[in-house]
Amino acid sequence: MKDKTIIIGISGASASGKSLLANTIVKELGSDQVVVISEDAYYKDRSDLPFEERAKINYDHPNAFDHDLLYDHLLQLREGHSIQIPTYNHSQHLREKETRTIGSHTIVVLEGILLFAETKLRDIMDIRIFMETALDICLIRRLKRDVKERGRSLDSVLQQYEETVRPMFLQFIEPSKRYADIIVPRGGGNRIAIDLIKAKMRELLGNQKPKKLS
Amino acid sequence: MKDKTIIIGISGASASGKSLLANTIVKELGSDQVVVISEDAYYKDRSDLPFEERAKINYDHPNAFDHDLLYDHLLQLREGHSIQIPTYNHSQHLREKETRTIGSHTIVVLEGILLFAETKLRDIMDIRIFMETALDICLIRRLKRDVKERGRSLDSVLQQYEETVRPMFLQFIEPSKRYADIIVPRGGGNRIAIDLIKAKMRELLGNQKPKKLS
Repeated sequence: MKDKTIIIGISGASASGKSLLANTIVKELGSDQVVVISEDAYYKDRSDLPFEERAKINYDHPNAFDHDLLYDHLLQLREGHSIQIPTYNHSQHLREKETRTIGSHTIVVLEGILLFAETKLRDIMDIRIFMETALDICLIRRLKRDVKERGRSLDSVLQQYEETVRPMFLQFIEPSKRYADIIVPRGGGNRIAIDLIKAKMRELLGNQKPKKLS
Repeated sequence: MKDKTIIIGISGASASGKSLLANTIVKELGSDQVVVISEDAYYKDRSDLPFEERAKINYDHPNAFDHDLLYDHLLQLREGHSIQIPTYNHSQHLREKETRTIGSHTIVVLEGILLFAETKLRDIMDIRIFMETALDICLIRRLKRDVKERGRSLDSVLQQYEETVRPMFLQFIEPSKRYADIIVPRGGGNRIAIDLIKAKMRELLGNQKPKKLS
């Protein structure tokens, strides 16, 4: 009998520390039986539209994501198959030709803003973790990342924040918190939360037979 | 060298599921190295006051608790000493003569409404868990317990709720959530949260040498 793949979802506001939490846990566990998948990679391919149109899309709305493909990939992983994770080019708003091949793993850590807003994604997860980080702290992180690291203008970042990031958080992300099994305050550097989740994952890894990476 | 006693605090609104969570975890772990201590046992001894005066005390305010004694007891446990936990008679609002003797344990699970509102208690805890249960759900539990099981009148339960339980929650308990390391939604029956906390505790128990109960 094949062991069940455990799917752990980490959701919460944009820049709330989801990927920091996911990557810290996986790095510290140091197991090749754990993989992180980002919902971000599953933005819909809208190469049919010109750049100007693509730039106008609301990327904080559930419709921007190819959740069907993500769901199908999770089922594939559960069946023991490999998947081809898309590569998304955020500056061009395009799916690249290259994909990242991921084989079956004991634990899949899924992170993204709208994972709990979608019934079938929610239902396929074994553990749902919500990052409860104050919105002003998320905004500070966003400003540092987008203005300081990515060279975007302050105006454009604030405009996007006010027009889509914040309203979509209130409409879709915050209400999806009710589906969380556990809520992590203070962001992805919350040491105690990291240790709790790691302990559970270590137990899950220990209880299952090692698998070969395909 | 003596192993460090781990103190895990569980706080949140009255009837939010704190003691259910604590007791479920400890029962399922089945280890004699884990003990539950309730803040409730540490109501101040006010036998100097007549019953009528004692009945008027605001039992949802931090001043109603002998937090100094609780803190001292936690230090004693950490030092490897035994403590005498008071027994509180809630209907008479009196401390009983009998005490419960508790020896040193690897893990102490502390549960109570105002644990995180007190700096020195907060600081002595290794893991702080906050129960985020909707207030109407807490009220339903309170009504079932106080009216149906304890035979109190609906009016008196609602009066106490409106006069002290709810205002003290807003003033002291809810603001203390910011000190939580992890937040548990949906109450003490949250299966995934129980399993996460148990995994961490199992790890803590496994890493330490077994101690004899004193």
